[in-house]
Amino acid sequence: MSPDPGRPFTVEPWVVREPSLDMASMGVTETVFALSNGHIGLRGNLDEGEPHATPGTYLNSFYERRPLPYAEGGYGYPESGQTIINVTNGKIIRLLVDDEPFDLRYGQLHRHQRVLDLQAGTLTREVRWSSPAGKTVKVRSERLVSLTQRAVAAICYEVEVEQPALIVVQSELVANEQLPTAHGGDPRVEAALHNPLVAEQHRSDPSGATLIHHTRHSGLRVAAAMDHEVRGPEGTKITSESSEDIGRTTVICRLQPGTVLRVVKYLAYGWSSRRSLPAVHDQVRAGLAAARYTGWDGLLDEQRTFLDDFWTTADVEIDGDAELQQAVRVAVFHVLQAGARAERRAIGAKGLTGHGYDGHTFWDTETFCLPVLSHLQPDAAADALRWRQSILPLAQERAQQLGFSGAAFPWRTIRGQECSGYWPAGTAAFHINADIADAVRRHVLITGDTDFEREVGLELLVETARLWRTLGHHDSSGEFRIDGVTGPDEYTAIVDNNVYTNLMAQLNLRYAAEVAARHSRAAARLGVNAEEMASWRDAAKSMRIPFDEVLGVHPQSEGFTHHEVWDFEHTPAEKYPLLLNYPYFDLYRKQVIKQADLVLAMQLRPDAFTPEEMARNFAYYEAVTVRDSSLSACTQAMVAARTGHLDLAYDYLAEAALVDLNNLAGNTDHGVHIASMAGTWNAVVAGFGGMEFDSSGLSFAPQLPPALSKISFGLGWQGRQLRVSITASEAEYHLVSGPPMRLRHHGEPLALADSPVVRPLPEPPFVDPVEQPYGRAPQARHPGG
Amino acid sequence: MSPDPGRPFTVEPWVVREPSLDMASMGVTETVFALSNGHIGLRGNLDEGEPHATPGTYLNSFYERRPLPYAEGGYGYPESGQTIINVTNGKIIRLLVDDEPFDLRYGQLHRHQRVLDLQAGTLTREVRWSSPAGKTVKVRSERLVSLTQRAVAAICYEVEVEQPALIVVQSELVANEQLPTAHGGDPRVEAALHNPLVAEQHRSDPSGATLIHHTRHSGLRVAAAMDHEVRGPEGTKITSESSEDIGRTTVICRLQPGTVLRVVKYLAYGWSSRRSLPAVHDQVRAGLAAARYTGWDGLLDEQRTFLDDFWTTADVEIDGDAELQQAVRVAVFHVLQAGARAERRAIGAKGLTGHGYDGHTFWDTETFCLPVLSHLQPDAAADALRWRQSILPLAQERAQQLGFSGAAFPWRTIRGQECSGYWPAGTAAFHINADIADAVRRHVLITGDTDFEREVGLELLVETARLWRTLGHHDSSGEFRIDGVTGPDEYTAIVDNNVYTNLMAQLNLRYAAEVAARHSRAAARLGVNAEEMASWRDAAKSMRIPFDEVLGVHPQSEGFTHHEVWDFEHTPAEKYPLLLNYPYFDLYRKQVIKQADLVLAMQLRPDAFTPEEMARNFAYYEAVTVRDSSLSACTQAMVAARTGHLDLAYDYLAEAALVDLNNLAGNTDHGVHIASMAGTWNAVVAGFGGMEFDSSGLSFAPQLPPALSKISFGLGWQGRQLRVSITASEAEYHLVSGPPMRLRHHGEPLALADSPVVRPLPEPPFVDPVEQPYGRAPQARHPGG
Repeated sequence: MSPDPGRPFTVEPWVVREPSLDMASMGVTETVFALSNGHIGLRGNLDEGEPHATPGTYLNSFYERRPLPYAEGGYGYPESGQTIINVTNGKIIRLLVDDEPFDLRYGQLHRHQRVLDLQAGTLTREVRWSSPAGKTVKVRSERLVSLTQRAVAAICYEVEVEQPALIVVQSELVANEQLPTAHGGDPRVEAALHNPLVAEQHRSDPSGATLIHHTRHSGLRVAAAMDHEVRGPEGTKITSESSEDIGRTTVICRLQPGTVLRVVKYLAYGWSSRRSLPAVHDQVRAGLAAARYTGWDGLLDEQRTFLDDFWTTADVEIDGDAELQQAVRVAVFHVLQAGARAERRAIGAKGLTGHGYDGHTFWDTETFCLPVLSHLQPDAAADALRWRQSILPLAQERAQQLGFSGAAFPWRTIRGQECSGYWPAGTAAFHINADIADAVRRHVLITGDTDFEREVGLELLVETARLWRTLGHHDSSGEFRIDGVTGPDEYTAIVDNNVYTNLMAQLNLRYAAEVAARHSRAAARLGVNAEEMASWRDAAKSMRIPFDEVLGVHPQSEGFTHHEVWDFEHTPAEKYPLLLNYPYFDLYRKQVIKQADLVLAMQLRPDAFTPEEMARNFAYYEAVTVRDSSLSACTQAMVAARTGHLDLAYDYLAEAALVDLNNLAGNTDHGVHIASMAGTWNAVVAGFGGMEFDSSGLSFAPQLPPALSKISFGLGWQGRQLRVSITASEAEYHLVSGPPMRLRHHGEPLALADSPVVRPLPEPPFVDPVEQPYGRAPQARHPGG
Repeated sequence: MSPDPGRPFTVEPWVVREPSLDMASMGVTETVFALSNGHIGLRGNLDEGEPHATPGTYLNSFYERRPLPYAEGGYGYPESGQTIINVTNGKIIRLLVDDEPFDLRYGQLHRHQRVLDLQAGTLTREVRWSSPAGKTVKVRSERLVSLTQRAVAAICYEVEVEQPALIVVQSELVANEQLPTAHGGDPRVEAALHNPLVAEQHRSDPSGATLIHHTRHSGLRVAAAMDHEVRGPEGTKITSESSEDIGRTTVICRLQPGTVLRVVKYLAYGWSSRRSLPAVHDQVRAGLAAARYTGWDGLLDEQRTFLDDFWTTADVEIDGDAELQQAVRVAVFHVLQAGARAERRAIGAKGLTGHGYDGHTFWDTETFCLPVLSHLQPDAAADALRWRQSILPLAQERAQQLGFSGAAFPWRTIRGQECSGYWPAGTAAFHINADIADAVRRHVLITGDTDFEREVGLELLVETARLWRTLGHHDSSGEFRIDGVTGPDEYTAIVDNNVYTNLMAQLNLRYAAEVAARHSRAAARLGVNAEEMASWRDAAKSMRIPFDEVLGVHPQSEGFTHHEVWDFEHTPAEKYPLLLNYPYFDLYRKQVIKQADLVLAMQLRPDAFTPEEMARNFAYYEAVTVRDSSLSACTQAMVAARTGHLDLAYDYLAEAALVDLNNLAGNTDHGVHIASMAGTWNAVVAGFGGMEFDSSGLSFAPQLPPALSKISFGLGWQGRQLRVSITASEAEYHLVSGPPMRLRHHGEPLALADSPVVRPLPEPPFVDPVEQPYGRAPQARHPGG
């Protein structure tokens, strides 16, 4: 139970424990211990605020505008961006022991433990500390962001003393906290924004306070309110005060050994771009009233019930690798936290756990995160796509500005406006539109929700199909080409006929025609007629998919396989990630891949490749993929499993799962990697589980990597709850709830009703090993690796 | 002799005359009337400073640094740029008539004429004006920037009165003039820099003053000094004063009708990045002393002698089109002005006539401007290439930063550092390196200067060849590819095997090997050995030149001819230039060409194309070239002539020649288009003259467009002065000076000695007409066009 060297956490199945304070890892622990319900996000900062790496309190879609400057401007470049900002911090509870501040940097720390409990949905902390003057206190705090009450967070803070002492607890709301400056020189670290909140109103009442601010440029209004329940010795006194940027409730008492001072802090947050100050004020006071009515124990109970229900379906069991077992559960937990109550707002690449990527949402929400949520938390997935529908007017405007029909969704955004300041790796990555369409397709297949298909999906599909129809063109040979775009791999840009993009656009066009035919009246209201549908089918049918006949592989895009291969042998380890040490110019024109692109196409469009092509392609692209993006390992895991490289798949799975617990990308302090975490689930379920589905149904082709003794996972399917368990010799299918169904096991049709069905696994195939670029193989985890 | 509507100038063979003040065209007249010797540039601002469009006093390579911001940064992006700045203005001579300022916006203007005299090298101005109080004065000024005394400019300013009046002349040096703000939104217009000069020293003496400043960020020191000779009536008084940013000499007298007040102002400029304040001070005082010693008449004489000598070789006669005749001479004159005394400094895209493009130097200096100077002013061409040699250390550093061997010259710069803030149309345009190498090759062929080849050329050739050798690679089929670069056409970027780039790199590699073999000891000192030379020859030999077998044309780059053709018919005229109204994304991926690229390859590498390919290629690219760049018409003129489209060539020639006189690009106020002007000469000489040369000698293939009755041009060739005259029926070759020589006339070998040789012209070939994109044909100038 002691942590690995360099990692602050122990390995335990259902909790993440930091057994002693690791100052050097504070940025990582703040991120991993972040609590969120998708609406509110609280980084795992210490109650007393300091020391910290990055204080963080976030509200989904609450952002500030900032200028996007260009050395040389151009038509259609966005002039301003959006940055998530640290809003009013309600986590802060300071403690004074006989007038000495409780600060871990001073005095003596006897014990410090923090535990994130994945079943309770809480972060608890236990400290035993002696002040410089020698007074010893025990502090216990427990924190939650409610998954059931969207606007609410709460903290239970308890103090005990070993010698009599005068105890002062200051529980605060702090706006415009001073923030550390962002790292210079790294394009992935966004500029910090200072003092973004302008005070509008503050008030205090005996047991709490409310602060209302608005952002200077984006004009959003935010209210934060707190209330307290205090249980302390006779004579405990509570007062509150407020000023523009501070609300403070002070609890003071003389504490004797054996007595506990307990302060329960209820927090409510609300924001709006439109509603009046009184309306937003009343909204947070109502949230606060509901929280206090529910009470601390009530909030804890609700939280556990919600999570019990979730884990019944969502739990993934991994036998034979305790570290991976923990990591997979943490991954699923953070995906849930990111999406659970986002409710028609964007799900960001970092959830609400850090300020990385400016808090933006990219294509990976649809491609990596929503497939998991569609199976495990379908309402959250539906809401995320409803958010895309809500920004369609902006996407249509953007398409028009760029000269196309339909909708062009932003490459990166918070509220819907394009915020990408470098178009070759931003706007040019039009595949995001097909990724959204495919998330619709998968969601409808997984849930069977045809109302959603008609009300939400149809419009998204029609508008994205229209984009592709004008973005591509038929050349003189009749092939439909999509030129000059950027695929998923950000080390290649502005290319013709990126296979991933073309295959996904093909599916988009084909599925749009299918859905428009299915909902013909609704489609007609969107102006779709038979001619237009025919033109989509025709473009899909003629879609150019380049193939290198000499090598027998698909080039990632036109001409790719003719490019020079990157000189991996002369690229030392410290030069990774390459984008920080080599010019885009050189990366783009050589065979070096940041992240799965053609391999991702094989994951999402297995129907478009023969098994032989899949094997050859996988081997070819393994040799040039450096995984400088956290979006890659999970996909490589999945495709490695599907091509029979079970040990390699296992290594990649661990890399994807451990990205944040082990800070593998070195930037976990900026927030968790939601896509890698979601991709972890997918690598288990679609990789080792071999799950595939289409309109003909659900199928599995389970395999187990030799190092593991069992994998078990659950998922939702068209109103059912399924559980699949895989051992070395067999797979068991269990219909936990819902009507009987049919599925396929390694191609064999099965009927599934009340009783579990067990089937033997085929022998694992023999495959030639594949190689990665010099120094870029994943850490070997499998025995003998 | 009256100007065309919309253009402020008359048509005359040897002068540019503005017969009356055209306030609306002031930006254009300031540019066209700019005087420069390549070291000092004075825009044609009015003596009294106001009204003005843009005040401009420039010193070659005197710049200020400015930050280059990026919304999303990247490795190797330059962090600061260089901007030419308006230095201390010594042109200003204010006049007060009985205490009323001479200002053309008030009072009554009876007559106003300005004349740029291409033979005298002066700008003269004659004004008759009545003050609001009714006093009438005549002012005559004449201005020159000395082509013989590099640091010197001078103005002769004369005043006469029609009624007795108290006359005050204030002759000034003004630093940190207030400038109009730059146009927003147009990426080609650079940000203005305000008050860039920090005062270091000022002094005055009775007849003049000196101001010394340094730039705030780039740390360059500049001195400007003036002295005056005054001839006026008895009692004329002269005083001078100075403060930090102003030096002022005041001349005061009571002037009677019939008497002339004459003030001759001598100006000297000097700057340095290294020399001390006293050194720079003494330098300008010495320049001033020399100017005063020469005297005004002496300076005028020197100027005319210099130009007489120049025009003897350089004059181009065009019979049958007076407007074109004038324009061609103006073009040659401005090319001379840009380069004459640049002396190992850069020759900018605008010369020293405006602040356009931040005063930067690009590839067009080598590709368009130097070929003309090598023939007409070879020392200036040699010096420009010596400047490139002097910045080799910076170019080597840049190559290393980008990961290549050899030298990577900056896409745009003043002092040698890369200043491009958008790499796809900047750093990626590596062809600039081959363009420099080719300028060396041509200069050595034209001058026969093998010392230059060894001392300057060799190093440039070796370092650029080394770049190409590492920038390209052999693919598995053995072809040498250059992937991911940008060719001349800025509406296509980051492509594989741009034919222009590959052909120029091929020549670069081949010629580098040839020169290294010729100067083997010098080459050995640069580390060149036989293996390296062999590797250059090998790369050149295996260079991939893509060809579209179906269409029978060369694609501009790999895959180009498969791209969608731009929808020209639905692109209204007001949407040009396209880059201001469409995203780069869409321009790059479609068949739409900003400027000659493959066609320029045919101009510079005619040896690489059969006549049939040339004809087909020209027709193909004509149909998709919109000429949104002023670098295009001259090349299209040249290749149109070479492919037999004589009328079209004539139309393009006129467009190239008239770009500034008729403000065809709409931005002449930012400075003249030196490349288009130089290209004009080339279109005449290499287009209609059919001039080509290589190591086997010089050849001509003259043709005359039907609209003209005669073309005559001169040029230098290996120590000789030649003149070629072309009429409809014959060509005359005249060896004006130098030893006998051989040349070819339409393939026929000729021996040329003392007597002119006359040869008949072949019948012009019949060719199918070619078409331009909808609305983008050049203005038809030929009869029946």
